[in-house]
Amino acid sequence: MILVNGIVSDSISPLDRGLMYGDGVFRTLPVRDGAPICWPQHFVKLGADCAALKIACPSWDVLDGELKALAAQDRDCAVKIVVTRGQGARGYVVPPAQHASRILMSSPLPQYTDSLAESGVRVHLCSLRLSHQPLLAGVKHLNRLESVLARMEWDDAEIAEGLLRDGDGNVVEGTMSNLFASQGDTLYTPELSRCGVAGVQRQRIMALAPRLGLRVSEQCLSLDFLLQAEEVLLCNSLIGVWPVKALAGKTWARHDLAHKIRHMLYAEND
Amino acid sequence: MILVNGIVSDSISPLDRGLMYGDGVFRTLPVRDGAPICWPQHFVKLGADCAALKIACPSWDVLDGELKALAAQDRDCAVKIVVTRGQGARGYVVPPAQHASRILMSSPLPQYTDSLAESGVRVHLCSLRLSHQPLLAGVKHLNRLESVLARMEWDDAEIAEGLLRDGDGNVVEGTMSNLFASQGDTLYTPELSRCGVAGVQRQRIMALAPRLGLRVSEQCLSLDFLLQAEEVLLCNSLIGVWPVKALAGKTWARHDLAHKIRHMLYAEND
Repeated sequence: MILVNGIVSDSISPLDRGLMYGDGVFRTLPVRDGAPICWPQHFVKLGADCAALKIACPSWDVLDGELKALAAQDRDCAVKIVVTRGQGARGYVVPPAQHASRILMSSPLPQYTDSLAESGVRVHLCSLRLSHQPLLAGVKHLNRLESVLARMEWDDAEIAEGLLRDGDGNVVEGTMSNLFASQGDTLYTPELSRCGVAGVQRQRIMALAPRLGLRVSEQCLSLDFLLQAEEVLLCNSLIGVWPVKALAGKTWARHDLAHKIRHMLYAEND
Repeated sequence: MILVNGIVSDSISPLDRGLMYGDGVFRTLPVRDGAPICWPQHFVKLGADCAALKIACPSWDVLDGELKALAAQDRDCAVKIVVTRGQGARGYVVPPAQHASRILMSSPLPQYTDSLAESGVRVHLCSLRLSHQPLLAGVKHLNRLESVLARMEWDDAEIAEGLLRDGDGNVVEGTMSNLFASQGDTLYTPELSRCGVAGVQRQRIMALAPRLGLRVSEQCLSLDFLLQAEEVLLCNSLIGVWPVKALAGKTWARHDLAHKIRHMLYAEND
């Protein structure tokens, strides 16, 4: 089911700036038993990402109503919410009275086996290096060609995700997930001021980590540092938390902390 | 008039990867008196850009037929040709049998006054710095948020274009044009191996310059170098050639070479 500006539809205008320029942002979240998970947090992030691009984000009332209409039809699904700068004339210039477009789409929840969350995932080390653009860093915008090209690097069903580094060699994120590494009582995650997407689950883990007695450090992380961590884990709103069991020749056998974090995230779901 | 996969339409699927990820490429060219200008060169570039993203480009016969149908309806217009990776399921992974989407759109030719080409244009020096991504450099893909954000930097009808630098401070291009600078018998243009779009008119100028007794040098160019050039000019398929008359406090009064290059480009049009 697809809602385009509140109306059931399977079409958008080819003149939409979302298509022309990738001029928009998006969110992906699960609906379980008719309830959108972490929707308030996703709405806050959607608003922040719209603000970064100076797009007027649709209101809570509008999006909440449409999301709930979708969730009522499709009680267990993945919902993607896209907000674009709307339809425009040819050329980059943004007309003064511009109306955002909103597109809400439901699709089947991905059928990840439980073993991925229990026993961990194999991760490909991508050769593509993320570019530095501070004005877009952190934002989940529609310019996702780097993720598309990175995802083309492997075609092996045993590999669940790819790890991305930047041009300086620092690790940043997965193609569709954020990244944490633990060492002692500290949970490390890459700082995302120059590239990467700062996802909602990353934010939640950072906020909730003290409950597990962990301090959080957001900083540049080298690949060597990551490979020497006690545990490495990936997160996003659909996978929850996946421990990493293999990356770049290194393997991890214990995933106790990843399991604790995963259970904490589920327990705290709205 | 809009043709989507050969059919007159004002809609595309919201599931098109062009919208989801900016996963596609485009061209813009003028149609004058029913004839698409430099269309063979644009087709070659479209194919090269599709290849960079591993998209199967539609054939010459298909695109040429659709372009000529558009040009027959609208004998003086700007045509935008968009090729995307086509419709897909949620997620970055590219299904094995993927069919590209093609969208051809006509819009009115921009009404640039002759004085821009004759007396030159004022150019804003953008503060946004283009990011380095060698895998996408040169390609006119649909991830154009940097151009959108750069174009937001000014709102002054007297300023016709913005000049973009990269993170190293080298000048690269305009938000919608390529850049040349002349010094003695040499025409300099930024090398585009890490960022920027290598446009068709830039390629034509580089190929034709020897006819004017000019050698061409494609290299890193600093802003200082640009500001000390004898002439600076911008090009794209809709503007042709614009001399720069003012940029970053520097002004240029003579535009003889820009005029020669502009006339040469028009004379050689297919």
